[in-house]
Parts: sequence; structure tokens; C-alpha cells
Amino acid sequence: MNIYIIGIGLIGGSMALDIKKKYDDAVICGMDSNKTHIEDALHLGIIDKKVSMDELDQADVVIVAVPVDIALMLLPQILDGINDNALVLDVGSTKSPICEAVAQHKRRRNFLATHPIAGTEFSGPKAAVTNLFKDKTSIICEIEKTAYKQQETALDLFQKLGIRIRYMEAKSHDKHIAYMSHLSHISSFMLGKTVIEKEKNERDIFDMAGSGFESTVRLAKSSPSMWTPIFKQNKANIIETLDEYILNLNHFKELLKNENFEELFNEMQNTNRIKEILK
Amino acid sequence: MNIYIIGIGLIGGSMALDIKKKYDDAVICGMDSNKTHIEDALHLGIIDKKVSMDELDQADVVIVAVPVDIALMLLPQILDGINDNALVLDVGSTKSPICEAVAQHKRRRNFLATHPIAGTEFSGPKAAVTNLFKDKTSIICEIEKTAYKQQETALDLFQKLGIRIRYMEAKSHDKHIAYMSHLSHISSFMLGKTVIEKEKNERDIFDMAGSGFESTVRLAKSSPSMWTPIFKQNKANIIETLDEYILNLNHFKELLKNENFEELFNEMQNTNRIKEILK
Repeated sequence: MNIYIIGIGLIGGSMALDIKKKYDDAVICGMDSNKTHIEDALHLGIIDKKVSMDELDQADVVIVAVPVDIALMLLPQILDGINDNALVLDVGSTKSPICEAVAQHKRRRNFLATHPIAGTEFSGPKAAVTNLFKDKTSIICEIEKTAYKQQETALDLFQKLGIRIRYMEAKSHDKHIAYMSHLSHISSFMLGKTVIEKEKNERDIFDMAGSGFESTVRLAKSSPSMWTPIFKQNKANIIETLDEYILNLNHFKELLKNENFEELFNEMQNTNRIKEILK
Repeated sequence: MNIYIIGIGLIGGSMALDIKKKYDDAVICGMDSNKTHIEDALHLGIIDKKVSMDELDQADVVIVAVPVDIALMLLPQILDGINDNALVLDVGSTKSPICEAVAQHKRRRNFLATHPIAGTEFSGPKAAVTNLFKDKTSIICEIEKTAYKQQETALDLFQKLGIRIRYMEAKSHDKHIAYMSHLSHISSFMLGKTVIEKEKNERDIFDMAGSGFESTVRLAKSSPSMWTPIFKQNKANIIETLDEYILNLNHFKELLKNENFEELFNEMQNTNRIKEILK
């Protein structure tokens, strides 16, 4: 079984590691525009060999794990190159633009749009880890547009990786993921920026960083190459979430200015519900 | 050695656990306005016995680990009640108001203002854990206003708990901790609020919560009773940090609106420096 992984980073590399463990006959074939990534992936045993776009007809499964702008461009070419039985799936954090980009392709039924919600703040093949997807959720969009055989291949793959499936419309995915993931990244990046700017002349101050700061600022370590195209493709939804977030921050600030501490307490107590929700 | 711990919550309870391990002769004496906390702390072996304010003259060390508004009120009474050799230290997240509250007290030299920067999002004695302070930083303010003997007692205690010391003016502490801790809590609370409000009719959406969201929203689980008085006492500094944070979020939103993706990329790349800073 030839598994082609296009983009051997955190996500592609981690998938490769688990697939190798779970499929005895898997040959992991890697592609990456970054030569160092390919070398690292070979060296680390993440991929068995390096392949090129010309060899796509040999693939049984193609996993596209590149930044979402590159995915938009590559997916039609990949579908052009595969054989009729292959499954192509992407794992990007935006789903509407990807689904639109392949909507009219003659091999649309070979494609499945997925978003396994897993990751860390690190990137590149050296960041790849086993079991990254175990007990995590993957969104699958437009399942009905994928042929049964390819659906089955994908579901078998996700099951072996321990992934829980949720089906969702592409537009709903993009709207909700703006709240559940994209906004978190912006809040974290801007928190990091605010603190760095303020403290730039007083480096010692970072001695005061506790686990709370580290936790809220963790996502500010994420890759700009990965996130810029996500923000671009999900612009409208993200602006909406940012408007609401900023509104809530301003409201909190006004409560503080006006010394309305009872209401400030209530705001926090109501938000404590997140404990139960995330259980 | 009689160690009085006033407020047997996450911080007071965790200190009690470590002190018990490190001092053979320590008798941990607990006080808490919450009866359940006292019962839990006795049951869990966090404290050896329950004491009252009338017995303060028996204390060798008094650790005040109550919400900062209660600390302001209690500290002068505690200093009134102790014997002349005792050390009283507080562990609150604001330092100027506390230092002012005891500035004129006849036993000011028995007091040390500290802020061990450690914690979790949980509270109460059941949240107490061992080694919470190991390799963490504690800020100490106005060290010169504390008598040598009490300084030594405190430094020995902190050393045994594995705490690293940084000396700072109370005003500087409050200004910097607004950036390094208080702002993180507000950004997290408001992120939680924004998402809960939006998704209140679609609970299933929280299936989409990844580790990134969980990390940025973790502090929104914190205790409002602890945080309301901190925000109250550090109001001016916090409003300043919030103004800058909101400004940065608005700027990011404008870049997105104007499709200035090059600058958006740069913003994130510059903030990636947090990786090196936090190392």
C-alpha cells in the first residue's frame, strides 16, 4: 500500500509514523518543497522514500498536509495525477475554499475533505510524534461527494489512528473553527506581542512568566507560514470572532474602569462553565 | 516549629504539603473561613490541626494565602496577634496595596511581602499538590523593611521549597505582573466568554476543541473570588495592559480586513520570538 504524504511536517509526519505502525504493508512516500524536511524525514525514518508528482499514479492514498494556500493550488494537480482507485485527503484548517477548488474536478469522488483537530505549536518533521491523533476529533466535510470505496479507505485509516469522526458542512466547519481554533491563535499571538513590546527593555521580567502565561501564549509559537493562509481563507469568519472578542474585552475594561466588581465577578463565574463544557 | 497557614487553598495547601516534608519539626496549623476547607485539609493530612486568630502568638511562621482583599484586612490583625519573633508572609498577586496596608504597623519588620509565581486553574485544599513551587520564581518586595532574622527564616523556607528569588519594588511588581499574569487571565476569560456565547445553542461544537483552545482557555477556569480583588487592586496597570492588547487586536483585524497578509505574517513571525524568550 503506497501512502503518499505531501508535506512532511508536524501533521503529515505524525500521520506517517502512525500509519507505519498500523499498516504492515504501508510504504510511506514523501514529498516536500523543503529539501531539509525530506532529508530529516528520511533520516528519522518517518518516510521510506522520496517521490515526485510524476509518480502519483502509484499512490493508493495521498495525504495532503501542506499550508492551505498550497493545498488549493496542488489539489487539482494531484487529482490529475492519481489513478482511478486512489484516495486523496487533505487535513487543512479551512474547508470551504478547498471543497470549492475541487468541486468541478472529474476525480472529485476520489477526494475527501478532512480536518483532524490535533497539533502542537511546533512544526516540521522533527516535530512529528506518534499517537498525535489518538482520541482526537476529525471533521469530515461533504462526505456524500466522495465515492464509497474511498470513504471506506479513509474511515479505516482514521479508525486505526484512533480518530473520532464528526460530519459537518464545509461552511459550518469554517465558521465554528474560527471560534474554536483560529481566534485562540490570534488572542495568543497578540498577547505575546503586547508583552514583548512592553517588556523589550526589561528582559529580566520574563522571569515572572508563570505556567498561566506560558499556557495562554503557547500558540504564539506557531508557524506564520501555516497560519497566514488560514487567516486569509477564513477572513470573514475570523473578523466576526475578533469583533466579538474585542467587544467583550472592552466591556470587561469598562466594568473595571467603573469599578463594577460585582458584574466583573459574574462575568468570570459565568465563564467558569468552560470547566464543565470541556470535560 | 508552628507554621500557621491562613487560607488552606491551592497555594496555602501546597505550601503546607511541602513544608511538612522539609521540616521534621513542623506543626501545620490551619485557618480558613470555609469550614469545608478546614475539614478537607485535616482529612487530606494537609494540616495537623485547626487554629484560631486568638492563638496567633504561638506561631513561628504565618503564611497568609487568602484572596488579596481579605489579606489587606487580615494582615494588620495578624501582626497585632503574633509574638515578636514570628515571621508573617503573604503570597498575593498584588504587592503595593499590601505593603501600604502594613507600612505603619509597629511589627512591619516581622512581615515579608512575597509573590510565588505558581499555581493552577484549580482552587481549594483538594487542588493542593506537592512540589508546586519547585523551580518557580518568587518575587520579594521591600526586603529592606523586614528584619534580618525574619528574612533568613523566609529565605530558608523558600530555598527548601525550591523557589528562586527575585527582588523587586512593589510598584514594579504590580506593573509587570499585570502583563505577565493578570492580562493572560482576562484574555482567557474573555476568549471563553466569546466562544460560550456564540456556541450556546450548539453544544456539539465543543467537540471541535483542540489542545490549542484548551490551552488558551485554561485560565478561564480560575476562581472569580480570587481574581476579582486582584483586578480591583491592580486596576490602573491592568487597564493599561488591556488598552494595548485591544489596540494590537484591532490592528491585526485591520491588517486582515485590508488583506495585508505580508504584514500579518510579520506580526506573527516577530511574536515567534516568545519561543526564545521563554526558554
